[in-house]
Amino acid sequence: MTYCVGMLLDEGMVFLSDSRTNAGVDQINTFRKMYLFERPGERALALMTSGNLAITQSLVSILNEDIEAGDDRPSLMNATNMFEAARAVGNAIRSVHMRDAEALKAFGIDFTAALILGGQIGSEKPRLFSIYAAGNFIEATPETPYFQIGESKYGKPIIDRVIKPSTPLAQAAKCALISMDSTIRSNLSVAPPLDLVIIRRDELRVGSQQILDAENPYLRMVHQRWGEALREAFGDLPDPQV
Amino acid sequence: MTYCVGMLLDEGMVFLSDSRTNAGVDQINTFRKMYLFERPGERALALMTSGNLAITQSLVSILNEDIEAGDDRPSLMNATNMFEAARAVGNAIRSVHMRDAEALKAFGIDFTAALILGGQIGSEKPRLFSIYAAGNFIEATPETPYFQIGESKYGKPIIDRVIKPSTPLAQAAKCALISMDSTIRSNLSVAPPLDLVIIRRDELRVGSQQILDAENPYLRMVHQRWGEALREAFGDLPDPQV
Repeated sequence: MTYCVGMLLDEGMVFLSDSRTNAGVDQINTFRKMYLFERPGERALALMTSGNLAITQSLVSILNEDIEAGDDRPSLMNATNMFEAARAVGNAIRSVHMRDAEALKAFGIDFTAALILGGQIGSEKPRLFSIYAAGNFIEATPETPYFQIGESKYGKPIIDRVIKPSTPLAQAAKCALISMDSTIRSNLSVAPPLDLVIIRRDELRVGSQQILDAENPYLRMVHQRWGEALREAFGDLPDPQV
Repeated sequence: MTYCVGMLLDEGMVFLSDSRTNAGVDQINTFRKMYLFERPGERALALMTSGNLAITQSLVSILNEDIEAGDDRPSLMNATNMFEAARAVGNAIRSVHMRDAEALKAFGIDFTAALILGGQIGSEKPRLFSIYAAGNFIEATPETPYFQIGESKYGKPIIDRVIKPSTPLAQAAKCALISMDSTIRSNLSVAPPLDLVIIRRDELRVGSQQILDAENPYLRMVHQRWGEALREAFGDLPDPQV
């Protein structure tokens, strides 16, 4: 499993991904699920992946080949806007599907992949997309300024209660980390190290990129104090008549 | 969908169920999912159901027929302990399976059902079971003193953080209601009215039974104040460096 969340805010974007992959409970590995594409001053994009690892790694290989081919092929580095970039990712997942889906089906394996792509290119505003295995996609709006992929349910209530477009970036990153902490606590197949990436509006570069392992002091503080805060808030609420 | 939670505590048991059923988003109905079996002074049992409504209603009809047949047949009203009662429910779900599963399969419909059965019979201690569609079951222990069925993920983190066997009944009911509120907020297919039932240890009767509709003042207070409390706790936590 996987948990990734991307948020589109007035000040910019927050991306957070875990790094656990598993094939059954006895085959657990660490693979990064965050990929950055940057030409400072021109564009900064982040892609997060979930689903079948062979599929998502193939996808990223194709995206990189397209970039290496230069301007002969549409790619994340020559797309003139984020919609084009999302279409490039959609096309890449479709070419993986064309190559592999039949063979996987013969082994009873579904073609599963879900992606979050966000970033800013040139003078266009920052945009955030959720891209499906079929290569189609939807875009975040002020009403729904975030997307989750993977194990999304445990960590959704806190995001729904806190995140608005006007939420400052540092608070949004805190919310993403609390959401991740709740997910890690409830699902063994989601785990650190975490990749936390910030792209500030109009900077056209990756603003900050951190890898938080299980010993990271901020992550440990969130883990401990959020639990305490929840128990305190719980204690303050009046009991029902039973 | 459905959300039900049952908790086994030192002081007794808490049962909470929603009442929304849906076949697609355009066919939404209200059906109670809480069934009580009581002979005061001798036994008090609560059964909560999720899954295919035709299956779970058949199951309850069979359980009631068995009771009406008196001592000729094993039933929830003549079982001498909770393990026997859980087996009676398991047998009933198996007989629904035997009758209906093939016909459902022909229409591509899975045989889905999940049940929570709890209660106390005679001098035995209160016991809580999670019963599967196959008629097999597991029992709650001090390490895992609760079971959820249906849409369980949104409301799990608060239960994991709060509920211990020593939690008082009123606090456990509050926790169940907060857990339900988070679920209702995130999943349209879970909704009031809610059935809240308390069975106190060694009382051998249903201690309290309440139906909470959407206008219930306590439920509205939980909905509003829990959201505020979460946002306050969120605000108190230091922001990360980004």
